[in-house]
Amino acid sequence: MNNWEANFGDLLRLALAEDLEPLGDITTNIIIPENLTARLFVQSRKQSGIMSGSFFIKKLCEFYDKEISINFSFKDGENFPQETKLIEISGNARSLLTIERLLLNLLQRAISIATYTGEFIKKIKHTKCKILETRKTSPGLRMLEKRAVLDGGASNHRYNLSTGILIKDNHIALAGSIEKAIELAIKNSPYLTKIEVEVDSLEQLKQALNFKIDVILLDNFSIENIYTAIKLISNKCIIEVSGGINMQNIKEIAETGVDYISLGCLTQSPPQIDIGLDFI
Amino acid sequence: MNNWEANFGDLLRLALAEDLEPLGDITTNIIIPENLTARLFVQSRKQSGIMSGSFFIKKLCEFYDKEISINFSFKDGENFPQETKLIEISGNARSLLTIERLLLNLLQRAISIATYTGEFIKKIKHTKCKILETRKTSPGLRMLEKRAVLDGGASNHRYNLSTGILIKDNHIALAGSIEKAIELAIKNSPYLTKIEVEVDSLEQLKQALNFKIDVILLDNFSIENIYTAIKLISNKCIIEVSGGINMQNIKEIAETGVDYISLGCLTQSPPQIDIGLDFI
Amino acid sequence: MNNWEANFGDLLRLALAEDLEPLGDITTNIIIPENLTARLFVQSRKQSGIMSGSFFIKKLCEFYDKEISINFSFKDGENFPQETKLIEISGNARSLLTIERLLLNLLQRAISIATYTGEFIKKIKHTKCKILETRKTSPGLRMLEKRAVLDGGASNHRYNLSTGILIKDNHIALAGSIEKAIELAIKNSPYLTKIEVEVDSLEQLKQALNFKIDVILLDNFSIENIYTAIKLISNKCIIEVSGGINMQNIKEIAETGVDYISLGCLTQSPPQIDIGLDFI
Amino acid sequence: MNNWEANFGDLLRLALAEDLEPLGDITTNIIIPENLTARLFVQSRKQSGIMSGSFFIKKLCEFYDKEISINFSFKDGENFPQETKLIEISGNARSLLTIERLLLNLLQRAISIATYTGEFIKKIKHTKCKILETRKTSPGLRMLEKRAVLDGGASNHRYNLSTGILIKDNHIALAGSIEKAIELAIKNSPYLTKIEVEVDSLEQLKQALNFKIDVILLDNFSIENIYTAIKLISNKCIIEVSGGINMQNIKEIAETGVDYISLGCLTQSPPQIDIGLDFI
Amino acid sequence: MNNWEANFGDLLRLALAEDLEPLGDITTNIIIPENLTARLFVQSRKQSGIMSGSFFIKKLCEFYDKEISINFSFKDGENFPQETKLIEISGNARSLLTIERLLLNLLQRAISIATYTGEFIKKIKHTKCKILETRKTSPGLRMLEKRAVLDGGASNHRYNLSTGILIKDNHIALAGSIEKAIELAIKNSPYLTKIEVEVDSLEQLKQALNFKIDVILLDNFSIENIYTAIKLISNKCIIEVSGGINMQNIKEIAETGVDYISLGCLTQSPPQIDIGLDFI
Amino acid sequence: MNNWEANFGDLLRLALAEDLEPLGDITTNIIIPENLTARLFVQSRKQSGIMSGSFFIKKLCEFYDKEISINFSFKDGENFPQETKLIEISGNARSLLTIERLLLNLLQRAISIATYTGEFIKKIKHTKCKILETRKTSPGLRMLEKRAVLDGGASNHRYNLSTGILIKDNHIALAGSIEKAIELAIKNSPYLTKIEVEVDSLEQLKQALNFKIDVILLDNFSIENIYTAIKLISNKCIIEVSGGINMQNIKEIAETGVDYISLGCLTQSPPQIDIGLDFI
Repeated sequence: MNNWEANFGDLLRLALAEDLEPLGDITTNIIIPENLTARLFVQSRKQSGIMSGSFFIKKLCEFYDKEISINFSFKDGENFPQETKLIEISGNARSLLTIERLLLNLLQRAISIATYTGEFIKKIKHTKCKILETRKTSPGLRMLEKRAVLDGGASNHRYNLSTGILIKDNHIALAGSIEKAIELAIKNSPYLTKIEVEVDSLEQLKQALNFKIDVILLDNFSIENIYTAIKLISNKCIIEVSGGINMQNIKEIAETGVDYISLGCLTQSPPQIDIGLDFI
Repeated sequence: MNNWEANFGDLLRLALAEDLEPLGDITTNIIIPENLTARLFVQSRKQSGIMSGSFFIKKLCEFYDKEISINFSFKDGENFPQETKLIEISGNARSLLTIERLLLNLLQRAISIATYTGEFIKKIKHTKCKILETRKTSPGLRMLEKRAVLDGGASNHRYNLSTGILIKDNHIALAGSIEKAIELAIKNSPYLTKIEVEVDSLEQLKQALNFKIDVILLDNFSIENIYTAIKLISNKCIIEVSGGINMQNIKEIAETGVDYISLGCLTQSPPQIDIGLDFI
Repeated sequence: MNNWEANFGDLLRLALAEDLEPLGDITTNIIIPENLTARLFVQSRKQSGIMSGSFFIKKLCEFYDKEISINFSFKDGENFPQETKLIEISGNARSLLTIERLLLNLLQRAISIATYTGEFIKKIKHTKCKILETRKTSPGLRMLEKRAVLDGGASNHRYNLSTGILIKDNHIALAGSIEKAIELAIKNSPYLTKIEVEVDSLEQLKQALNFKIDVILLDNFSIENIYTAIKLISNKCIIEVSGGINMQNIKEIAETGVDYISLGCLTQSPPQIDIGLDFI
Repeated sequence: MNNWEANFGDLLRLALAEDLEPLGDITTNIIIPENLTARLFVQSRKQSGIMSGSFFIKKLCEFYDKEISINFSFKDGENFPQETKLIEISGNARSLLTIERLLLNLLQRAISIATYTGEFIKKIKHTKCKILETRKTSPGLRMLEKRAVLDGGASNHRYNLSTGILIKDNHIALAGSIEKAIELAIKNSPYLTKIEVEVDSLEQLKQALNFKIDVILLDNFSIENIYTAIKLISNKCIIEVSGGINMQNIKEIAETGVDYISLGCLTQSPPQIDIGLDFI
Repeated sequence: MNNWEANFGDLLRLALAEDLEPLGDITTNIIIPENLTARLFVQSRKQSGIMSGSFFIKKLCEFYDKEISINFSFKDGENFPQETKLIEISGNARSLLTIERLLLNLLQRAISIATYTGEFIKKIKHTKCKILETRKTSPGLRMLEKRAVLDGGASNHRYNLSTGILIKDNHIALAGSIEKAIELAIKNSPYLTKIEVEVDSLEQLKQALNFKIDVILLDNFSIENIYTAIKLISNKCIIEVSGGINMQNIKEIAETGVDYISLGCLTQSPPQIDIGLDFI
Repeated sequence: MNNWEANFGDLLRLALAEDLEPLGDITTNIIIPENLTARLFVQSRKQSGIMSGSFFIKKLCEFYDKEISINFSFKDGENFPQETKLIEISGNARSLLTIERLLLNLLQRAISIATYTGEFIKKIKHTKCKILETRKTSPGLRMLEKRAVLDGGASNHRYNLSTGILIKDNHIALAGSIEKAIELAIKNSPYLTKIEVEVDSLEQLKQALNFKIDVILLDNFSIENIYTAIKLISNKCIIEVSGGINMQNIKEIAETGVDYISLGCLTQSPPQIDIGLDFI
């Protein structure tokens, strides 16, 4: 079992404790016969979307009650229509009702992110530009949310603070200068790790370009400045842009020719795709 | 230490692991001198809001580095204006940069929920009706989100499946009838625990009213049916309503005279209040 | 897996560590061949009793060695005679000998509580009065002991400090007055949670009856005062009595017409029912 | 921190979770002001006894709230009279009320065992015989109970299955013969570990005495047979007796000249010494 | 599951986390198809040796991926030639590559210790002397290394500080005198536990021999002094020697007639036996 | 607290449990007075060396007993002579004796690795070549061993399987061809992560050089082939060599002009530098 799967198992234990301690689902335990089995369906409501999160839902079922069986009508990354059966789960009726809310809370989060990502992708798929998420994820659910971004058709930024150098404004301020920060990074960056530098002006960009770095992040650049930056960089490194990008302006930015656009909103404020658990 | 504080400590360990494993914040560790101290400010951007989450932010700082000191300009539940210093944190510069993102992720969640709740409260404060959140919370963060709802001026529904009986549609379907479900609940509900029953029609309401229950939940009732329900119930129990309630129709519903309105959107899709961590 | 089952698993790990660290059962490992299988019987000695604890015994076997098979001659709550086979366990002989003592320690506790409870029940079964246990349980074994009380024919009080409001003498003393304590409780009690107030005099009872509360606990009342209290309460709330109640006086108290009697001795000092593990 | 202290910390977390999850002591949190401090006394009621358990009570206070201060009027092992202050605890009033029950549950267990042990000791203190407890302890609380036995004036048997060889009837039965069991033990016992053999007849004793063993346990021997056994053993090894020994017959048994008497009842069924937590 | 198996499981989780966090084996996950299966062989290189560690390797495979199947060509304790297949493992190709390094790190440690031990054993097998390891083991891997010593043909010293009394120079220095240290040990040693005393001169030996102790450890004695010591001890207790013993002088020391020789180098610096994981 | 520090804390708990369960250091607890304080010195014996591991030793002391104070005579990375005081530790005498062995086991490992690394560094310090360790580290102690390599003057390879792409022979074999493996890696490597490819022949090297990769690892190349490889690579990427490199041939290899040499022996079989804990 990989490390992040173990961590997700720990999150499940916390999340189930939070919803069940000390006595479990007392309503269900009182009303539903102990050995009753049931078949329920997770269904989409009035919205279509992109499937995501199946791995995590399976883990939840397995974690709470190994006898639950679960079948998905769509693979992660596939589009589903409105008012459609997404998942069939069957097993002990008490178990199903007890995990209903946690299952929906996890699944809705994954589907909403994937679907929102997919809408951004549609706007720029005629370009070579790729979309990335940021580290603005829900504490404990980063992997679920990063996977949902992939399922929506985008790419993943570095997983965390330990898997890539990214020099930002606060690093530069505390180091004293962008040159000093970059020099230290080049000298000491871990083996096999690349260096990215965030710049917030053409001035800073020029300073950064005196060094051999792998990726430049243009933060809050106007379209005009992005074009200027691309010329200055002149293929010496990869270009990422971020800051104030939304469904309205993403097309124009992608068409400048930058390599990557990163979007905090993908994981932070995707419109919620409504789903529910029903008998039929 | 209460149980939920211990659980929140576990969540922090998971969330920090997620962002730091295996080597910590490598950028910061390479660029920032080991013993440098710094003073940073969490600031609001272009939006005003309601403060929330201070307990959890303090725990995070304490958990990661006991030497960090933290001062809040506003108490939880107080309104703050736009472009204002909310929190001053000072201490080891590496520590501050390393926890920056997790701190903001937690705080923004709390503030956004409190602020959104406060906007609903404004719509109905001329009535005796109270607002409640639901169990549609982020896995592992229920207490932070429930507290944010309180800070916004609303009340809390039951904490979890174990602290209150709430009979819902799926319980009724699996029990066979609403009567059977209620009878079982009355007979076996834990000592000192109340019983609430969700009904989705006046028909079901009448069936429920044959029993001595503590709270009735009217789910997706029209305004007209709510008025009829209130008459039928005639003060025999507390009345809660839910389903399809939003900023537009909440005033009208509260004015019917119901006791509680529960809103899933408070915790599920509050508009994000933008905040950042800056040097000044 | 429910939360309390996970907690019981943690207790088992602690209890096994306590008895086995660092090297396991060295006597058994040296003397008994590694692959020998055996069949043993848990048997009652010179006393009859009421069966209890089977769920927890099964969990222990499963936890230590999944290959152990276990068969119960009596269901929880059933009476068993003296000198009788209660349980047949078979499997790896080393495993069986290694868990023997912990198994007996857990089982004897459950059976002794259930049996003692059953004796109290016999005294009052001609009345409508129910018996409850208290929170005077063995740290870490509350669920096992609460289940044993149910198996003996009694009911359960609130599970813990978090699942019901019970205002006691120390709360009243620190709040300043019984009125202030009750007012705070009514104003702030969690959704779907009832309120019980302990009173130790008719005076206090009258003060409490000015408020709408759910349960009154008469602590250390004389028979005469219980009768007076019943009249004063006059069906406005449920009545529980506690304090100094034993096998001799319980009948008289139950016949007063109170709803519940709570007994600390059920879990604190039940006479031990002797059992052993034997080959036959 | 020693291993068993870490394990006791784990037990405290379980025991507090059991009594507090999910929300803590809701009655106290609602009624008692957040910053109120209080001073309470643990007091004996109508019984005198022997103090015990102070280490564990201190750990509990430290674990739950480091600001609690605690003063003991008696050291572990000292006699205390009836109706006397045993412990003064002061600190945050909410904390004190929240841990009251767990504190009393642990302390009463320790005091009751120490006091009961002390009564056995009185019966035999004119002899050279020592008293031992058995492994019939409460799961998770072995160290607290073993310490209480010491505080009562007795000695400790081996701590657990891993710290001493004790060949019992089931080992002999499964090994085929007492000779085979002892031979294996002698050949393979861990470095620096002694061997004890339980015998249930003079016959078995003679077989055992053909080997060089460290301790003989005479199980359920009559007084007459104990005298015969002492002669047969003739100082070749230490002698322990067990089985059916009580307050009535212990004097006679100790006077035979055996080295140790082990008593399951010390930890399994000590009469409960009543204590309470009061304001004064 | 025994306590030390649970602890080894905890070590595996740590060791896998260390090598895999946060994302697992990214090279393997990118290059190897998800459902590819493979069969690999652990093979010896240019050295022969003694097999050891199979229990721990099996646990690792089981822990990481239950579907891995593993077959050993040699039992623990058996000699294997150079350039030979030691183990066949088959299963999911990603799993096999991911655990390759940890598997080899554990196995090589076990085999190297067993093989080195075996070489010492060869030197002294014509005597009655036995070889023991010390507590100079790798933190977290004591059981694996102690088992390897057994597989190499030697015996085990006490498992840890809690399972045997061993009075060393620092104890004597801090107690004030060897007499005082031994007196305390005799008076208070746990039930069924033996006492060993380390002496570094004939002087100290004579002082120790005034007491009834179980084992004497002669530390850094010359051959001549060992002979003198044996005469002084004259079978009153077991004799162990340690200090400066190596492949050259062990024969001479064993031939003195001492019972045990303990060697720190067995676990601390065994020559590494090279092994690898190959496709064929 | 960084993730790896938390993991090291977990290892310490395991390692202390392993050496202390169930009762702690019974010899010390019996012989040494409870409140005695002492001052001890860790001293080098007959060898000089390079200091390392101080962070981990401090953590151990802090973890076991916060009152221990510890002073280092040498900083990590500094040379120390033979027969010299390296560390002064003072505090409770029982605590010091109890952790003595674990402290020495950890420290000796760190110092031995640093010292051995330092000897390799001396051989090549006239060149620009750097030395790296491998993943052949002790399970659970990777960070301690990687730090020791740094203290010895070398550099660190990637921390683990998750922080860098390294394509090895088994990946190539299972992917079908080196081209396919590299193509997949280039297409899917995580953001900000570099790619290294191991080749075992000039043939393979040429195939690899058709792609844009960051580092080439020449495995088991002859000196002659290394020179040829350097010409073929012609500064297009970083060059690392490994396989069969030792104290004798490292100078010659470093002088070829390669960038890095990686050595498994640094962490796997450093000669042990003897140290001890003494009173003076």
